Amino acid sequence: MTRIDDLMTPVPVVDEEVMAANIARVQEFFDGLGRNFRPHIKTHKIPELAEAQLVAGARGINCQKVTEAEVFADAGFDDILITYNILGAEKLARLAALNARVRLTVVADNATVVDGLADAFHPDRPLRILVECETGARRNGVQTPEAAVELARRITAAPGLIFEGLMTYPKPHGEAAVEAFFSETMALLDAAGLACPVRSHAGSPSLFNAADVPSATEHRAGTYIYNDRKMVREGHCRIEDCAMHILATVVSCPTPDRCVLDSGSKTLTSDLSGFADHGLIVEHPGARIVSLSEEHGVVDLSDCASRPAVGDRVRIIPNHTCVVSNMFDRMVFHRQGTITRTLPVRARGLVW
Amino acid sequence: MTRIDDLMTPVPVVDEEVMAANIARVQEFFDGLGRNFRPHIKTHKIPELAEAQLVAGARGINCQKVTEAEVFADAGFDDILITYNILGAEKLARLAALNARVRLTVVADNATVVDGLADAFHPDRPLRILVECETGARRNGVQTPEAAVELARRITAAPGLIFEGLMTYPKPHGEAAVEAFFSETMALLDAAGLACPVRSHAGSPSLFNAADVPSATEHRAGTYIYNDRKMVREGHCRIEDCAMHILATVVSCPTPDRCVLDSGSKTLTSDLSGFADHGLIVEHPGARIVSLSEEHGVVDLSDCASRPAVGDRVRIIPNHTCVVSNMFDRMVFHRQGTITRTLPVRARGLVW
Repeated sequence: MTRIDDLMTPVPVVDEEVMAANIARVQEFFDGLGRNFRPHIKTHKIPELAEAQLVAGARGINCQKVTEAEVFADAGFDDILITYNILGAEKLARLAALNARVRLTVVADNATVVDGLADAFHPDRPLRILVECETGARRNGVQTPEAAVELARRITAAPGLIFEGLMTYPKPHGEAAVEAFFSETMALLDAAGLACPVRSHAGSPSLFNAADVPSATEHRAGTYIYNDRKMVREGHCRIEDCAMHILATVVSCPTPDRCVLDSGSKTLTSDLSGFADHGLIVEHPGARIVSLSEEHGVVDLSDCASRPAVGDRVRIIPNHTCVVSNMFDRMVFHRQGTITRTLPVRARGLVW
Repeated sequence: MTRIDDLMTPVPVVDEEVMAANIARVQEFFDGLGRNFRPHIKTHKIPELAEAQLVAGARGINCQKVTEAEVFADAGFDDILITYNILGAEKLARLAALNARVRLTVVADNATVVDGLADAFHPDRPLRILVECETGARRNGVQTPEAAVELARRITAAPGLIFEGLMTYPKPHGEAAVEAFFSETMALLDAAGLACPVRSHAGSPSLFNAADVPSATEHRAGTYIYNDRKMVREGHCRIEDCAMHILATVVSCPTPDRCVLDSGSKTLTSDLSGFADHGLIVEHPGARIVSLSEEHGVVDLSDCASRPAVGDRVRIIPNHTCVVSNMFDRMVFHRQGTITRTLPVRARGLVW
């Protein structure tokens, strides 16, 4: 089995050259900006790829869960930021064990989380904490610079915790709000006599606007390594910069205007990411994947110039690549269609 | 670890008593109707549960993929229907190997698929084929009874294939269309001198209306074993009949009207199943899970009488239970909160 055309479908494949170019392009951008870049491993969940990101110049990695950080610590990574509020006795015990062997940082956006961390960590091996700030994404985060300072004080008061700075997961193109929140909070922290060495900004879709957040010291991003249909829509890249494709086969053409692919929600996931359909079929850009069941992708061909036949293979660019990675135990890589390696997606399915 | 309350979240758990009652209720219904019942394993993907379904009285199992059938054949199941058009040399070779050791049936809805099967199978070990008929679900299937007969003739003409009958995956509450298609096709087949011993009807949401398809000889259904929010909406069951819950923890309450759960699209999946939100929180029925990222579920509390706090644990009934099973390597079972067993989801992630 040396060609991706011989693989059974559906299967995701990643183009080595496109991926390498994506890694280089973004790293060079942040090198030019003089800003640390910390890749989020959620997109690929593969230690070998994170290693390539570090070799290119990245500083540390970003995980979302304790279990993911454990996988990457086992693989030798020693600077890990977990951008999640961690709660509960067992997770805190595992976090402490992890902190004993790698340079670990986590985030917190509320007093309950800080108090749990304060109980679990001690001055002989303190844990670094960034305060998560909401800057428009309407997810987690303290709501005001004043609340950020209050939480920083609480962290500083805990002997086992170190207040390390600020973190946000912004909305795409939300640079102005991030800069306003960070700079205002830094001024308040400075007035309070609290050092704030790290200001961690993030996001793939508008990462090339990172210069608009001059107060940031680092940037976190994941999707840029593979890219996807959403990243094209957001203006980050071109279709040709999407490294991941789903190879699928047409299994049925029940009517002239409908065909069915063997790629459903177990492959593409149901993540629409703001689109009205479930991915872009490269060979038939007028086709629309209008509905998914687990193993079927139903395609509306009514606006499609070409008509695929049963047995045809097609390539799909997924709406969102990170969620596709999580569906598969292994990822296949290729160079111009020749398989180069198959890697286990070692951090797949880790939600704790 | 004996109580589900001690498990790290997010995690799906299945109530043994509710599941057993669901199995018994549906099997008793089909026993009373005098109709074979063939459970679809896609909902649980666990051989031990399929075994319980057979012990209750089911006849054979239904898989969607060759690889799933291999897992269940390895586990000792010997009557397997794969309701999928199978194409491609490697899949056909694996199908032939499987047919050598179990009683295997597949479906076809087009000549390309039939011709591929015809080339791969031989009279010494023929393969049984059902013709898939479209009866309103707008997915796969021949469009007319005449087309079904034409495909049946093509199957009959192949020395290695046996035309065994008809199959459909209907839309919910589509019984009248199924009965019309089946009975009209049976009359045409009879006139053509073609026997049609199997007429396989399906679906969980309206399975208790199966008497409205008197021409059917068997029924296939999967979701009924766990049930989910969609099955409640469709009138199949009550909230209390949902055996699967996602245990989740509130990790952030950034504003009075918003909290965030540690359960995102890697747990609940983005499968809306026609709902506007991502699952029902049992303890806070007025809360709405309005958006998901991979590890966050953002909850709108503005119409919610109660206000959860950071650290609170909640139970979520997923919109669609089958897709949740596919996200996890193991499933935890319990009886009134005490863990009874943890089983590998052995057919998880199989898409070939």
